[in-house]
Formats: sequence, C-alpha cells, structure tokens
Amino acid sequence: MKFKRSERLIDMTHFLLERPHELVPLTFFSERYGSAKSSISEDLTIIKETFEVRGVGTIQTVPGAAGGVKYISKVNVSSAKQMIEELCGHLENSERLLPGGYLFMTDLLGNPQLMNKVGRLLASAFADKEIDVIMTVATKGIPIATAVANFLNVPVVIVRRDSRVTEGSTVSINYVSGSTKRIQSMVLSKRSLKEGSKVLIVDDFMKAGGTVNGMKNLLEEFSASVTGIGVLVESESVDERLVDDYISLLKLSDVNEKDRQIKVTEGNYFQSNLSFLS
Amino acid sequence: MKFKRSERLIDMTHFLLERPHELVPLTFFSERYGSAKSSISEDLTIIKETFEVRGVGTIQTVPGAAGGVKYISKVNVSSAKQMIEELCGHLENSERLLPGGYLFMTDLLGNPQLMNKVGRLLASAFADKEIDVIMTVATKGIPIATAVANFLNVPVVIVRRDSRVTEGSTVSINYVSGSTKRIQSMVLSKRSLKEGSKVLIVDDFMKAGGTVNGMKNLLEEFSASVTGIGVLVESESVDERLVDDYISLLKLSDVNEKDRQIKVTEGNYFQSNLSFLS
Repeated sequence: MKFKRSERLIDMTHFLLERPHELVPLTFFSERYGSAKSSISEDLTIIKETFEVRGVGTIQTVPGAAGGVKYISKVNVSSAKQMIEELCGHLENSERLLPGGYLFMTDLLGNPQLMNKVGRLLASAFADKEIDVIMTVATKGIPIATAVANFLNVPVVIVRRDSRVTEGSTVSINYVSGSTKRIQSMVLSKRSLKEGSKVLIVDDFMKAGGTVNGMKNLLEEFSASVTGIGVLVESESVDERLVDDYISLLKLSDVNEKDRQIKVTEGNYFQSNLSFLS
Repeated sequence: MKFKRSERLIDMTHFLLERPHELVPLTFFSERYGSAKSSISEDLTIIKETFEVRGVGTIQTVPGAAGGVKYISKVNVSSAKQMIEELCGHLENSERLLPGGYLFMTDLLGNPQLMNKVGRLLASAFADKEIDVIMTVATKGIPIATAVANFLNVPVVIVRRDSRVTEGSTVSINYVSGSTKRIQSMVLSKRSLKEGSKVLIVDDFMKAGGTVNGMKNLLEEFSASVTGIGVLVESESVDERLVDDYISLLKLSDVNEKDRQIKVTEGNYFQSNLSFLS
C-alpha cells in the first residue's frame, strides 16, 4: 500500500504528537508508507515548519546511523502569555475563596483542556532537561503530573499520605509542613522509583514549600536527584520559602477574606531562563 | 497569510486531535487559513479517510448553519485487540503479586503511553453516549479517568476517602465494600458536580463492585445518573457481583499465591455492544 503525501503528513503528525521526545528512525516512516527517505525528509521539514509557526513545538533531527527525528512540545512566548492569562482569569474569581484563605481549584484540575495547557507550559519549560520521571503527591498534583508526563513522555510516580497494600513495600518519611509547622508523613512504593533517577517534581500549589521539600527528602532515600520543580500556583504571602529553584505559572498575591477579593498574577515563568520557540 | 494544503492538513490534524468531540464550524478553518470552504471540505475528507484507515478515529460532519465537524476518537477491532494483548502481557507477570492476592499496578498507571491506550479504548467504547463528566475515586483511578477525559473531552470529578478544606463543602456517604464487607466512606465536593449530570464511572480495579456501587449511591445525592461504567481490570473470583452493566478491558482470572502465578485474560470489552471503526 502506497501513501500519498497528504495522507503521510496527517498520519505522521498524529504519530509524532502521540510520542513526544521519542526518537523515530526515518526508515520506520519510509517502511510504514513505502516511500523514499528523501520524501520522508521533505514531509518532516513541512511538519517542523508548521509546528513552529503554530506554536505546537518542533521536530529535532538526530543525525547518524542511530539517528532519527523527535517531536518536542514547546510553546512560543505569545501563546504561553495567552494561556497563563486564561488561567489567571479562571482563578481570580472570588467564589473560589474558601474559609482559611484557601482557593477552590478542583474544577480546574478536572478540566482536560486546561490541564493540557498547564502540561504544555511546564513541559516546554523542562523540555531540554534530562528527566526520567515526574513525581507528585496525591491527590491534587496527579492531574497536573499526568498532563506534563503526556508532553514529556516519561512516567509519573505518586507519593501518598498513607500506605496501601496495593503499593507493596514502601519507604516512608516524616516532614514538617512549611506553613502549618505540623509533622506529616509521605510514602512512596519502593518499586516506583529506580535508584539514581532524575526527577521533575510537580504540584498544584506551593506555599512555603514544605511538601515539595518533603518530596526532595524522600528522593534522597532513593538516591535520586531533582532536575526541576514546577507548580501551577505559588502563594506570595510566605515568610520563609523552603524551596528556591522552581517555576510557577501563577502567583496568588493577595487574598482578602473579609472583602472576598483574590489577586492572581503571572508566576515566575517568564523570568526563568527558558528557551521558547521563536 | 495563506496556507498551502500540506500546512493546513498538519495544523488541522493537530487542532482536531487536541479537541475531540468539539464541534468546529467550517468557517473557523476557512478564516484560520484564508481558504475557501470547498478546499477545507476536501482537506477534512482526506483527514477523515486517513484517520479511519489508521484506526485513529473519524471525523463526523454535522450539517446545517450551526454545523461543523468533530473528531471522534475510535479504535478498530484489530488495534483494540493488540492494545488489550499488550496490557495483558504487562499484568501477567508474577512479580506483580502482592500479599493477599493483590496486584501491583502502580507502574502501569504512571505510564503515559499505556494510559493513553487505556483512555482510547474506554473512550471508544463510550464515544456514542451522552457524557457530561467522568467520575473516579482517588488515588489509582485518577490516571485512567484523566486519560479517558482527554479523548472524550469532558471534565473529571474525583471522589475522595477523606474530606479536605480545599474542597469546600462536601457530600459524604458510607458504603459497604463488596469483598471485605467493611464500612467505608466517600466524599465529593458539592461544587464538583451539577445536578442531573450524566456520568461515566471509571476505576482501575473492580472486585465485587462495592466501590463502584458507592459511587452510584453518591451520584443519587446529586440527582445525577450513570451513563456507563468502565474498569481496567475486573477480578473473576467474586461470589456476588454488585454491579452488572460495565465494560472491562482485562480480567484477572486466576491468582495462585503459593505457586506465584497470575492469569490475566481479555475482559468483556469485545462482548459488549460496541461500534468499532470498520
């Protein structure tokens, strides 16, 4: 069966989008479509250009006998600005205000279109880093972690508050919550993480950073290292931050419970040393 | 800026894949590319045919002034068989056996490529049903629910075992676990679910069905109704099943702790009254 260029372009676009960061040899495509490598190269040039113009990402070429192409999901500055503005708009709604100055975010975390935007933004920020696995803590970090994992194409491991029989043997640590100063525990299944893994930590909300810090301590038990930290929302009103090197999409800068007002602004995303699509 | 057909095909493929089940008017595309509607229609025909041949899904056309096209993710029988076989292979590994006859599945739930296959399979099964929201229970159901949500493009609501301040006011019920006969509780944030919603229940593992049944009871509190139930693995060794109308991808049919053997077979997926891509 021979494929026309138009059919190849559609199928290759789908194939690559499904497998970000995966190296695909050109021979794979030329066999899949019964086409010459030169035609496949031309197809990939068109896909690369269109992805870059549209802010979808890029196609990287790895030369040599073991080479091929990979799709890297990356945003450009203008679409990143637009996405973060949209997220601000969603959060800055006084009806989200809960007793104690907490924000209701569960609906946003359950919205697949929004989570894909969050995933694309964080995956772009860490696209050039070496990452073996994404770590988050149950429950609310999970939708964000799986969204980022979809664009970086690496597995997710989930830290829990409690130990379950279905996790097998586990490693548990105690840590001090940064804002409430209470001692809490965290549990990770032993089988979940290989020794020496390079880990991207992801969470929905960071106040003082006690939870993220707890995850860092847990990683030491596995001789694993932190490659990066990304959060959806950071809270500005913190006396002492326990974590310094992180990327946040949004910043909760003012919560007035009496007047029921919330101020949400851009996080430190654009101040970080990121490489965007031009 | 005018686009060539090749660029349009790539961008439309990406655009549609990102928004399953969303109605997109033809005028949207003709404005986006500065192209005549007739050219857009031709593009869509090529995309539809390629998607169907490759088992990606289909493009539905809704006629009329308020019409347009939508991408529906659907698998064909042969790729569904292949995916379910792959899942069987992963599960049927005696090292997964935990004390008490439980299976370690956490690594599979954290694998984005596998979860996307599970999501596509379950989303295909329920593609023709009216679904407002997908419901699951924390923690292990979440990766499956978000994967299905990505292909059906509807929100996820997460039932928890405990109530948290960040959930706002909640509705709580008690239910009896089907296999252990213990009383447990389930909590859902009041804001998470609109009255009268049509709900697809999704979970990772079903034994007697007590948890799924609990979710059904919880839905009654919200005057919501169940459109379908989908699980990754069902356990065959059950005296009395509390749930009858469900779809399972896999069936755990034999667990021998002494000899450390597990038997995992196809679930009832292909026995169900599904419409596949031909």
